[in-house]
Amino acid sequence: MTVDALTDVAGLRVGHATRIGDGWLTGTTVVLAPEGGAVAAVDVRGGGPGTKETDALDPRNVVRGVEAVVLTGGSAYGLDAASGVMAWLEEQRRGVRVGPDAGHVVPVVPAACVFDLGRGGDFRARPDAATGRAAVEAAAASEPGAAVREGCVGAGTGAVIGFLKGGVGTASTVLGSGITVAALVVANAAGYSVDPETGLLYGELFEGRRVGYPADDVHRAAQRRLAEVAAQSPLPPLNTTLAVVATDAALSKAQAQKVAGTAHDGIARAVRPVHLLTDGDTVFALSTGTRRLAEEDPLALNEILEAGADLVTRAIVRAVRAAGSVTGNENGNGKGGCWPSYEELYGRRR
Amino acid sequence: MTVDALTDVAGLRVGHATRIGDGWLTGTTVVLAPEGGAVAAVDVRGGGPGTKETDALDPRNVVRGVEAVVLTGGSAYGLDAASGVMAWLEEQRRGVRVGPDAGHVVPVVPAACVFDLGRGGDFRARPDAATGRAAVEAAAASEPGAAVREGCVGAGTGAVIGFLKGGVGTASTVLGSGITVAALVVANAAGYSVDPETGLLYGELFEGRRVGYPADDVHRAAQRRLAEVAAQSPLPPLNTTLAVVATDAALSKAQAQKVAGTAHDGIARAVRPVHLLTDGDTVFALSTGTRRLAEEDPLALNEILEAGADLVTRAIVRAVRAAGSVTGNENGNGKGGCWPSYEELYGRRR
Repeated sequence: MTVDALTDVAGLRVGHATRIGDGWLTGTTVVLAPEGGAVAAVDVRGGGPGTKETDALDPRNVVRGVEAVVLTGGSAYGLDAASGVMAWLEEQRRGVRVGPDAGHVVPVVPAACVFDLGRGGDFRARPDAATGRAAVEAAAASEPGAAVREGCVGAGTGAVIGFLKGGVGTASTVLGSGITVAALVVANAAGYSVDPETGLLYGELFEGRRVGYPADDVHRAAQRRLAEVAAQSPLPPLNTTLAVVATDAALSKAQAQKVAGTAHDGIARAVRPVHLLTDGDTVFALSTGTRRLAEEDPLALNEILEAGADLVTRAIVRAVRAAGSVTGNENGNGKGGCWPSYEELYGRRR
Repeated sequence: MTVDALTDVAGLRVGHATRIGDGWLTGTTVVLAPEGGAVAAVDVRGGGPGTKETDALDPRNVVRGVEAVVLTGGSAYGLDAASGVMAWLEEQRRGVRVGPDAGHVVPVVPAACVFDLGRGGDFRARPDAATGRAAVEAAAASEPGAAVREGCVGAGTGAVIGFLKGGVGTASTVLGSGITVAALVVANAAGYSVDPETGLLYGELFEGRRVGYPADDVHRAAQRRLAEVAAQSPLPPLNTTLAVVATDAALSKAQAQKVAGTAHDGIARAVRPVHLLTDGDTVFALSTGTRRLAEEDPLALNEILEAGADLVTRAIVRAVRAAGSVTGNENGNGKGGCWPSYEELYGRRR
């Protein structure tokens, strides 16, 4: 049974830590690899990235696997969340063995952040090591193949995308070859996930069916509301879309990096414009390696590349549709800002 | 007056050399910079690229400007076309001065190729230095700001995209700041430019208006025809989309590389899947530097990034719509293959 989530890749767990209220509107999401780690790679395409431990993933470098990937709010400050994940992994004796004792390990925990500073009202309320620990503990406590919460949770708690509320989304598929591919995103972008002229979610244009456009009056009302939000926004639209694309196929680091690269196409189809200087768009790829790719076919990777991009598009649609409106009450002090959700403005999916 | 083409960037000229018949269905397109060259960069995102002189464009490396960019058919063999362009430039004494004589120059001429081998029936009929010379001479002979031929010309002569005929397309815009941005593409991809479920050109989904879908019977007939073409295709769908994005804004090489990178988003929106191992997708960026970017605004580049991606999408739509069907008669021997055009199958734009 699958749950249309990153956890459909056997062995991967996802945990969220969510901080809302009293000035907070942020959080951290951890993707926990199976013990022994997963092959990992990264492709950073945004012009304003905030990352940690990404150079270790270069296919030329020594590290083969990672124990976890951290996606976090809090901009570059929030990368501290990875320290809490490292501490937990050290306690579990998980990581690269570097000394005579089984506890002498250094876990490799790549991390990337989204900008959400001040959205809960307090510029200094941002994820730290304790937030990261809470997220990885939540992941470790989850059942194998558990469903993954979407919307305003974890690293998507404070996410905003084109003045609409953003969030976390996830999706998976099983290819004809039996290989599972899945994606999890944090949708938080300076660009738009919605066509400003029609009100349609860009990502829904790629679902292989004729699209149904929102009614004119609904769209006009939504545009008025978004213009008000934009006018009242106390902060410039700094952002970043993050994604993790995972598969159970056995990939080299270099192949995984290609998967991370083409997954950015999935962001481009769902967010426009994207990869600007105001976005730090970053995609991680993970391979648990339990299924062999057809070695006799040099193009066997193509179906994973294609699926990864498509799943990222679908996960962004799910993130935006799963997000709930933030009215300012959540902030305790109402100073952070208000962002309507897509479904508040345009209604549920038809 | 603008012509909605790459030549709207003042000083840039475009020339095509087209070889059709007697086994040929290929060609070369040259973008000729103003004397003294243009700042240039490249971003290669496809998994099967064929390029020349691209390492010189790395922002860390010494070369500042290029005299011309060559896009060519003929796969890696066709890169020889660049040699003919270099020879012509040497005669003009254009290039990096490397000796006491004004004729002691080495012109930097980056090149990238598309796969079209055998499409005219003769696997060995491919662009060479003479083809490159013909294209650069055509460019040099053209008037400033001349319109650019689109469709099955130059490097797009043998282009195929998802079993439809591909080709050359171009588009331009003038931003509110007065900066001109333009793109020229050679659309030749393993993926589809048309949604197989609806018959709509993917790129037309991003025109900021409600789309009109082809009639069901038209789409079904088109799908039957494309299935026949796919069944008869003597060759695997090796391909590559190439683009040149240009602006009159003064960019550093690093800024130009960012422009080349985000322009790939424009390919992703118009072609799906893309950036596979079977595509060598490559984007060059050129800056003629006659307009200053607002230096006090670190984000001034964003509007060029956004426009570049959008223009690439539009240029791909124009390439596919401008292409004419290839019936096999053009080949002299009919052995290469037949590819219907989008407009033959779906009709002209409404």
